[in-house]
Amino acid sequence: MEELTGAQLIAESLKTQNVEYMFGIVGVPIIEVAMAAQAAGIKYVGMRNEQAACYAASAVGYLTGRPGACLVVSGPGLIHALGGMSNANMNCWPVIVIGGSSDRNQETAGAFQEFPQVEACRLYSKFSVRPSSLEVIPSVVEKAVRTSMYGRPGACYIDIAGDMVNAKVDRSQIRVVSCCPDPPVSLADHGAVAEAVSVLKTAKRPLVIIGKGAAYSRAETALRELVETSGLPFLPTPMGKGVLPDDHPHCVAAARSRALLQADVILLLGARLNWILHFGLPPRFDPNVKIIQVDLCAEEMGNNVRPAVALLGDINAVVTQLLQGICKDGWKYGSGTEWWSLLRNKIAANAKISKTLALQSTVPMNYYTVFHHVSQLLPHDCIIISEGANTMDIGRTMLNNYLPRHRQARRTTVAFTGAPSQSLTHPLI
Amino acid sequence: MEELTGAQLIAESLKTQNVEYMFGIVGVPIIEVAMAAQAAGIKYVGMRNEQAACYAASAVGYLTGRPGACLVVSGPGLIHALGGMSNANMNCWPVIVIGGSSDRNQETAGAFQEFPQVEACRLYSKFSVRPSSLEVIPSVVEKAVRTSMYGRPGACYIDIAGDMVNAKVDRSQIRVVSCCPDPPVSLADHGAVAEAVSVLKTAKRPLVIIGKGAAYSRAETALRELVETSGLPFLPTPMGKGVLPDDHPHCVAAARSRALLQADVILLLGARLNWILHFGLPPRFDPNVKIIQVDLCAEEMGNNVRPAVALLGDINAVVTQLLQGICKDGWKYGSGTEWWSLLRNKIAANAKISKTLALQSTVPMNYYTVFHHVSQLLPHDCIIISEGANTMDIGRTMLNNYLPRHRQARRTTVAFTGAPSQSLTHPLI
Amino acid sequence: MEELTGAQLIAESLKTQNVEYMFGIVGVPIIEVAMAAQAAGIKYVGMRNEQAACYAASAVGYLTGRPGACLVVSGPGLIHALGGMSNANMNCWPVIVIGGSSDRNQETAGAFQEFPQVEACRLYSKFSVRPSSLEVIPSVVEKAVRTSMYGRPGACYIDIAGDMVNAKVDRSQIRVVSCCPDPPVSLADHGAVAEAVSVLKTAKRPLVIIGKGAAYSRAETALRELVETSGLPFLPTPMGKGVLPDDHPHCVAAARSRALLQADVILLLGARLNWILHFGLPPRFDPNVKIIQVDLCAEEMGNNVRPAVALLGDINAVVTQLLQGICKDGWKYGSGTEWWSLLRNKIAANAKISKTLALQSTVPMNYYTVFHHVSQLLPHDCIIISEGANTMDIGRTMLNNYLPRHRQARRTTVAFTGAPSQSLTHPLI
Amino acid sequence: MEELTGAQLIAESLKTQNVEYMFGIVGVPIIEVAMAAQAAGIKYVGMRNEQAACYAASAVGYLTGRPGACLVVSGPGLIHALGGMSNANMNCWPVIVIGGSSDRNQETAGAFQEFPQVEACRLYSKFSVRPSSLEVIPSVVEKAVRTSMYGRPGACYIDIAGDMVNAKVDRSQIRVVSCCPDPPVSLADHGAVAEAVSVLKTAKRPLVIIGKGAAYSRAETALRELVETSGLPFLPTPMGKGVLPDDHPHCVAAARSRALLQADVILLLGARLNWILHFGLPPRFDPNVKIIQVDLCAEEMGNNVRPAVALLGDINAVVTQLLQGICKDGWKYGSGTEWWSLLRNKIAANAKISKTLALQSTVPMNYYTVFHHVSQLLPHDCIIISEGANTMDIGRTMLNNYLPRHRQARRTTVAFTGAPSQSLTHPLI
Repeated sequence: MEELTGAQLIAESLKTQNVEYMFGIVGVPIIEVAMAAQAAGIKYVGMRNEQAACYAASAVGYLTGRPGACLVVSGPGLIHALGGMSNANMNCWPVIVIGGSSDRNQETAGAFQEFPQVEACRLYSKFSVRPSSLEVIPSVVEKAVRTSMYGRPGACYIDIAGDMVNAKVDRSQIRVVSCCPDPPVSLADHGAVAEAVSVLKTAKRPLVIIGKGAAYSRAETALRELVETSGLPFLPTPMGKGVLPDDHPHCVAAARSRALLQADVILLLGARLNWILHFGLPPRFDPNVKIIQVDLCAEEMGNNVRPAVALLGDINAVVTQLLQGICKDGWKYGSGTEWWSLLRNKIAANAKISKTLALQSTVPMNYYTVFHHVSQLLPHDCIIISEGANTMDIGRTMLNNYLPRHRQARRTTVAFTGAPSQSLTHPLI
Repeated sequence: MEELTGAQLIAESLKTQNVEYMFGIVGVPIIEVAMAAQAAGIKYVGMRNEQAACYAASAVGYLTGRPGACLVVSGPGLIHALGGMSNANMNCWPVIVIGGSSDRNQETAGAFQEFPQVEACRLYSKFSVRPSSLEVIPSVVEKAVRTSMYGRPGACYIDIAGDMVNAKVDRSQIRVVSCCPDPPVSLADHGAVAEAVSVLKTAKRPLVIIGKGAAYSRAETALRELVETSGLPFLPTPMGKGVLPDDHPHCVAAARSRALLQADVILLLGARLNWILHFGLPPRFDPNVKIIQVDLCAEEMGNNVRPAVALLGDINAVVTQLLQGICKDGWKYGSGTEWWSLLRNKIAANAKISKTLALQSTVPMNYYTVFHHVSQLLPHDCIIISEGANTMDIGRTMLNNYLPRHRQARRTTVAFTGAPSQSLTHPLI
Repeated sequence: MEELTGAQLIAESLKTQNVEYMFGIVGVPIIEVAMAAQAAGIKYVGMRNEQAACYAASAVGYLTGRPGACLVVSGPGLIHALGGMSNANMNCWPVIVIGGSSDRNQETAGAFQEFPQVEACRLYSKFSVRPSSLEVIPSVVEKAVRTSMYGRPGACYIDIAGDMVNAKVDRSQIRVVSCCPDPPVSLADHGAVAEAVSVLKTAKRPLVIIGKGAAYSRAETALRELVETSGLPFLPTPMGKGVLPDDHPHCVAAARSRALLQADVILLLGARLNWILHFGLPPRFDPNVKIIQVDLCAEEMGNNVRPAVALLGDINAVVTQLLQGICKDGWKYGSGTEWWSLLRNKIAANAKISKTLALQSTVPMNYYTVFHHVSQLLPHDCIIISEGANTMDIGRTMLNNYLPRHRQARRTTVAFTGAPSQSLTHPLI
Repeated sequence: MEELTGAQLIAESLKTQNVEYMFGIVGVPIIEVAMAAQAAGIKYVGMRNEQAACYAASAVGYLTGRPGACLVVSGPGLIHALGGMSNANMNCWPVIVIGGSSDRNQETAGAFQEFPQVEACRLYSKFSVRPSSLEVIPSVVEKAVRTSMYGRPGACYIDIAGDMVNAKVDRSQIRVVSCCPDPPVSLADHGAVAEAVSVLKTAKRPLVIIGKGAAYSRAETALRELVETSGLPFLPTPMGKGVLPDDHPHCVAAARSRALLQADVILLLGARLNWILHFGLPPRFDPNVKIIQVDLCAEEMGNNVRPAVALLGDINAVVTQLLQGICKDGWKYGSGTEWWSLLRNKIAANAKISKTLALQSTVPMNYYTVFHHVSQLLPHDCIIISEGANTMDIGRTMLNNYLPRHRQARRTTVAFTGAPSQSLTHPLI
């Protein structure tokens, strides 16, 4: 007979589900969970505020495809983690939050930091639950990890009654639950793919927009081939940067406004037509633009603009389908078209304006000057961590013009400072 | 210049989205919405309780694939509709609920039946919103209808401030929003389909389970071909009945328990492994059963049992993919196998027991006697409306044995009596 | 050793708290709770819809001061009860709802009608909880009953896991919990009472408004003495009717609009300045009216209108305080004042108009004619149950003019038909 | 004609309600609100994290009786403030949170940081609202400030649509709303007070417990007179410290466990019988202890233990009532009683043990040594800010023994570091 504590069972279950990192702040009643996690081989990172802990854990999820865990105490401990949960859930990053809570026999009596925690997490999660017994912990952890990764990724919450942490159960009572596989992949309908290819081929002013979904689905190889084979210009969203390098000759980020405004067909890959893309509507888009929308979330299809074609499926898989459709007859969008000329001229004009500004020596320095000089000093492969707030300002344009060679590195750049909220607006794409 | 009232705009927007039916109870402030709906050509059905109205509207959605609308007054009017919304949302039926609410300038002041209605609908809906202006109504209605149908279908709620019903707006101010298309279709990954075919072909005791998802995706044609070509036995869930007739020679519903318990490979088509299917676990299932899970909802994959293969996509499309994979080499599961003998014997034995019971003339009559005599009197194509509560009892078995020829008809049988909750347990599959 | 089931423990606990009535619909898993309730001497009333059951249970609470219980099954059973809970909670009627729910070991697995029920009740209750063990049931029931009655009364919800209903516990394990006493009574501050008396005595056009709070606190004796001693005119709100009879010579209900509009000092007894009282604002009230607000809820003080004096406490107790303050120097508001003349003339004029209308023999009959003839046929002490919807219309005025002698009876008239929501608007005062 | 922006209207309204402090982090869309607040004479404190900002604002509310304001941006900005709102709401501290949010015409379209913010604040507030127009802002702000202070104080949330900040309205359109008065005061029922006095006078081992409610109601003068006139021993809760000094001769804090365990009558003044007071139950309390519970919240009465007498009313007012009842016949609890001897001996014994420990020079130092030396170095009137986490440990006892002369100062000691949650457990009493 082998006895396990609740803490050990939680740790083992997370480890079984390939959760490799845990960020948190220990305290009553979850100290032993952190110790058990370390004993089980999970890398535990002690933080100074649950707020930052949860952002960190969710960044791990976005970057690796398996959720990080965030471990917090009850009451304020959990509530401080809601910012990270919310960010993860809105931005489709997998994360698991584990919160200690009141002992079961003190519920309603005014227990230490008693709060309806499962309910508090509802708005910020795909799954929120308080297991009633030790026996169900492995399957609850599996369901949480799986749910955080499958479909649109997001946050899941598990509430652990304080008295369950050190309670014991015999291992023979526990149903073995194996690791959940990677998410299932689906393809777009063949007819819809054919239609999309046909729409693309008739485009006069086509544009590919690369969103966060393309990055998360690891579409970089297929997408590079698609772009290079087809000859299409592309534009990354802020979180779509790094899938293809910003200094790729087909990148038209430095003529972003013009590209968006005049495109007549847009292949939208895993990006939402929300405020970041001006809702896909005039005055920033052509009212007659045809959108080929590729997304793994059916409910995203048609948000704000009715797509000409909706391709539902895994971004990487659908890009591969499109590649086959486009390539089979050797079609290519010519580099000598009027549209390419227009975009190249705009890029050059913008670069010139920026350069002029960059070389000004007014006091105070303008943004361009700052970026120019910073850029010159940066090594090629550095990781830049910036503190939000620049989402909305001119800085975004700057990064496009001055830091192109650092894009690949930025792929791994996620700030988890737990600092003021403005730094968190950055990922809200 | 043409002026529209809020009521007209709501009605027109619903009509544009092909919403054909509206069920409701009129009162302040939504009387004019019902009148405008009638004027716009929507069939308005006045009900006696919002509870039944909402069940009715959601049944329309399940049966037609486009949501019905439910129109209710504020406060208790809306709260009475939550049962129908909940049923629709849990069971993946599209429905739109439109609730009148407080005038905007009386909010927080104690308006008539003032309540946080958008919030009240959160747990029961995919989308819940209070438009801030007349101008956004067409796009909000489009989003509600689209969201109710795309992905897993469900309930959507639109809250209409009382003062907006008779307020006016010039048509030129309203952005034209067209009808959202039918939901996009996705296919399963080719490799996963091949693996599923391979697992099926090696099965000793295979079983196809036909769930509500197969019915909703209109897989009846492809599925009949799959079953007949492959020679596999099948079992419908309660809501999967009617996709194939119960008196089909491959139907093993009358040996349900045995089939579930001894199957070594199960092709699960749009059915959840929840309480209705005993969670897919022992003692009702073989602990080593291999499940080929077909679902359009990624998060459903792996619930309670890790599938051998997960096929993510539209049920009808995936059944077609499987059909191609199975048929291409002429494979067929033989009708002379030990498994078929076992199932046929069990069916015959069950039928004999039932018949004996059916012919008893004890007082009070047992269920079997009742069903036997009722069955004899029923015409072939009648629609039977029963009042719930029989989900759990022997009645279900009875229907299998005695009413097979009425299955096709039952496809359109949905009770919306708004009666005690037990009648609503029926669709909770 | 004496063993108790969960069902017995729930029933005993309710009985201990003097809960005398239970309304509900039985089904899995709470059948045994109803049986145990009957065994414990609670009057169980089987209903046909949980909606009506919950309205009935809350009416018992309003009429007796101790909550009735409503017993429902899980999922739709509970959701159908939300209308009654909402009505009770918004209107400050004590009620206890007991809902069966999923077995603990099936949580998250897709249990029968599984739903986050505690959370679903949050918006509609003062207290919502799922006990984790049999042992805490007596204290949870006590807290629910007490919370439903203390402060502003309202609804409380107790969620019972299905597996707890028939589980057993030894009585010696259960802490004895006694019956909670009637709510504590508080008085208004002496200085504030003196100020209120002073304001009242200087009024030119005073008015007493009798609200539901006066009825609930059983202020009828003290209030009659106050009105008769002071000579003040009074006006009941719809739910304040019956505290004093409508045919009392000081009742000015038949001149309601005039009384509200021209009063310069209003003694507001347990009534909210919400839509029923036109928010206490122009154009229905004098902008300079001085309100003496008497309420047991501090947060109600000052809603919409800043009171001249706020008297926080039990309505009956504060009326008694005011009575002492007013009487001690023999002050009386004279019946010959201009204000009384104006009110009496208005009442007479309204009666005349009504009478004319009542005697018309147009087809279709107008309201007045109907009421007139119905009134003539009614015995003196009958109970009238009407189906809502007349809250807003002329009917209310009619009742004032034609059915005065039935007021006392109407005190006990509460409709619990579970019919369309309009019948429920009635109590929303 | 004078035009006001939304920002000015918010600022003016807060100032009118005597809100003196605002803590926050500016950003889109609420920058102008901060500027307008400064222009209106509100002290604006820029913080580095909304978490700390909200704790700070609520501390102002607790210390002054008028809420502080917390100003945050949308999305993560607001969610970071939930910790402070939760702490304020659970601990009954008044605070107003003002959050920027999406422009009204972008709702549901994917606006910048769009989130259902009003709903997100529901669990953490008494009142949460999104005004629909500029016109209602003054009355919404008044209701928020008033609700935060009246009854049990707590948090209120006002959501400001981004487009309303710079929108303009003519002043003549705005109804003038005056400053809400201080909360109304209520008294306990005279009969209940008499009963309480009678119970107190028959006590063998009486104890007064001074809670946070006594501090908030500013009962220090009446309470000192009550304690000194009656001769009763008293014990402060952590948040009740400073009402009377810890070095008062009647303070038995250094014999806390003994006092709680053996008291036969407890006068409980504004303290909850929750985990801090061991639920008022054995083994930490005498099972037959008679509690005289004084609270302004009716629902608090009887939590966990049925009181012998419940005195509902303002703590300061009820203490004054008790003082009159106790003093009128010259009764006094003698200082020579067995109970006083027992308590004094226990205090002396504890002090001796502590002193021995304090003078140890082991490595590492024990708590006692640290406190002893720190204490020696502290000036008499310093303010100590400690970082939570010591709620649960021996530190609390230490403070009692070693830092008595700093109590008065600690009255104003509230940490708002926004540091790890453990520092926030401190006020959760």
